[in-house]
Amino acid sequence: MNRGKDRAVLVLSGGVGGAKLVRGLARAVPDCDLRVIVNTADDFEFHGLHICPDLDTVMYALSGLQNEQTGWGIQGDSWNAHEMLGRYGAPTWFRLGDRDLATHLVRTKLLREGQPLSVVTRSLASALGVAAALQPMTDDRVETFVQTEEGELAFQEYFVREGTHPAVRGVRFAGIEAADPSEVLLGSIREVELIVIAPSNPVASIEPILALPGVREQLQRSRALRVAVSPIIGGRALKGPTVQFLEAVGVEATAVGIAGHYRDVLDTLVVDRMDAGAESEIRRLGLDVIVGDTVMRTGEDRVRVARLALSSLWPSEQ
Amino acid sequence: MNRGKDRAVLVLSGGVGGAKLVRGLARAVPDCDLRVIVNTADDFEFHGLHICPDLDTVMYALSGLQNEQTGWGIQGDSWNAHEMLGRYGAPTWFRLGDRDLATHLVRTKLLREGQPLSVVTRSLASALGVAAALQPMTDDRVETFVQTEEGELAFQEYFVREGTHPAVRGVRFAGIEAADPSEVLLGSIREVELIVIAPSNPVASIEPILALPGVREQLQRSRALRVAVSPIIGGRALKGPTVQFLEAVGVEATAVGIAGHYRDVLDTLVVDRMDAGAESEIRRLGLDVIVGDTVMRTGEDRVRVARLALSSLWPSEQ
Repeated sequence: MNRGKDRAVLVLSGGVGGAKLVRGLARAVPDCDLRVIVNTADDFEFHGLHICPDLDTVMYALSGLQNEQTGWGIQGDSWNAHEMLGRYGAPTWFRLGDRDLATHLVRTKLLREGQPLSVVTRSLASALGVAAALQPMTDDRVETFVQTEEGELAFQEYFVREGTHPAVRGVRFAGIEAADPSEVLLGSIREVELIVIAPSNPVASIEPILALPGVREQLQRSRALRVAVSPIIGGRALKGPTVQFLEAVGVEATAVGIAGHYRDVLDTLVVDRMDAGAESEIRRLGLDVIVGDTVMRTGEDRVRVARLALSSLWPSEQ
Repeated sequence: MNRGKDRAVLVLSGGVGGAKLVRGLARAVPDCDLRVIVNTADDFEFHGLHICPDLDTVMYALSGLQNEQTGWGIQGDSWNAHEMLGRYGAPTWFRLGDRDLATHLVRTKLLREGQPLSVVTRSLASALGVAAALQPMTDDRVETFVQTEEGELAFQEYFVREGTHPAVRGVRFAGIEAADPSEVLLGSIREVELIVIAPSNPVASIEPILALPGVREQLQRSRALRVAVSPIIGGRALKGPTVQFLEAVGVEATAVGIAGHYRDVLDTLVVDRMDAGAESEIRRLGLDVIVGDTVMRTGEDRVRVARLALSSLWPSEQ
């Protein structure tokens, strides 16, 4: 197995689903030059702190701190500040563990001192021993708003406070036109051999990255092999409101729908065995197809799915 | 025992020592109209949070949350955020417990939203069930700087980070001339029957309150009985660098020295039995003297010292 740093992989990721794939990649090719660009459009302020849910989920995953049960937060964290915040009548719909709070405190302080989020993220991740280049999609503020039957909600209000209950009608990313894409993102699109779109919510988590000025065009022109892992298995999402978001923007919640949605920026779609029947239809859209077991529950699952994503470029990883 | 609200007491307090006396007062006269004005000149920013060490110590004491061992912080608090802050390389010389962090988060957020510290303090204390009127000495920013042999240090740097080691040469309260004294403080000096100066550091904790514009003059003219509990017993402070601060400003660290220091704003000094020999000398300074056991270790101690302070006005409390 070639473990040289010449293997450079760029991953576009949201939170929990992306974090799983990224962990698998880090384990499947330990010495690979792994660059992870994470959605920050669902960042928000809570208790005066700047919270980056997706970045933190991936950072905790890559540092081995992640809570395996929830997929977010830190393993074995305590909830004493959270409880006390409740006693003060402060909002508690977003649960912040005590250890997790330290991340938000340090980040918020550095941001207030004028450091860009990319630099802050590098400091935090490096302190936790993360070897991968973990970066926010932009240093600028982009905010996802979800249009629902009950009106427009900030993403975390919809996702956590309202528990994804209100029916989704659409989505917008405030500030996206003025946001500068991460330099690591633009550089990597030019440099890497493989670009992987994680099985995150294509509309709420991946679209903000693609919608940053110039990113979609750069991806369309990239010489890298571009692979996505389908977040839809047998017409369902394993987690979260992915189906609702896809339908809200008129995309069929199937492997074929995902293929059509990503086709302009994709070469290969990894689909689950359950969707093997869609292979020929996806190929007719001009994409290659890799079929395998894509559910990620264990560490072995994560490595297996990572190897599926790597396999067309580096078959030896299979 | 008369427990009517007609008994109004104003206490001027620093942190740990003041908190003990205030707890004693609250228990000795449960229905008394207790107003506690707390030094805020040693407030500081840490991890971007606004920390009020003395206010919190008194608030936790009055709400029954205080850590009995340390005198500060919350009983049974955990240190997970603190540990994680250390992992990020953030400064950890001031220890913030996880529950305690919630206090600073809520306070900092409300202050940033423009609420004055007095209003914020009322909200926090009320959420914790504190019946007394607990208030900061001012809503304005006053900062204690300690002149030491190693240069000038912010108070908490001297007190906590340097562990009170550098020899003290003097002290200054930046911003004090422009600070408006608390309305509760000024109103209470006019209204209450009894004013108690807690056995806190006279130079570092009580002087900032007295030095607020107009406060010393109002106290001099007050019709209330003005009682102080000596923080010096047998020439020593029970806790903290009180002796060093007194000597740095040329005050003898004895009961007589305390009497002389406070005489312009005092009627009566409560001294420990160890200092009974100083009684006649203190009386020659024009002050009454109450002698008793003033060490406060247990709840009974605190009530006993509180009753000593109350005894010249309300002897039945003895």
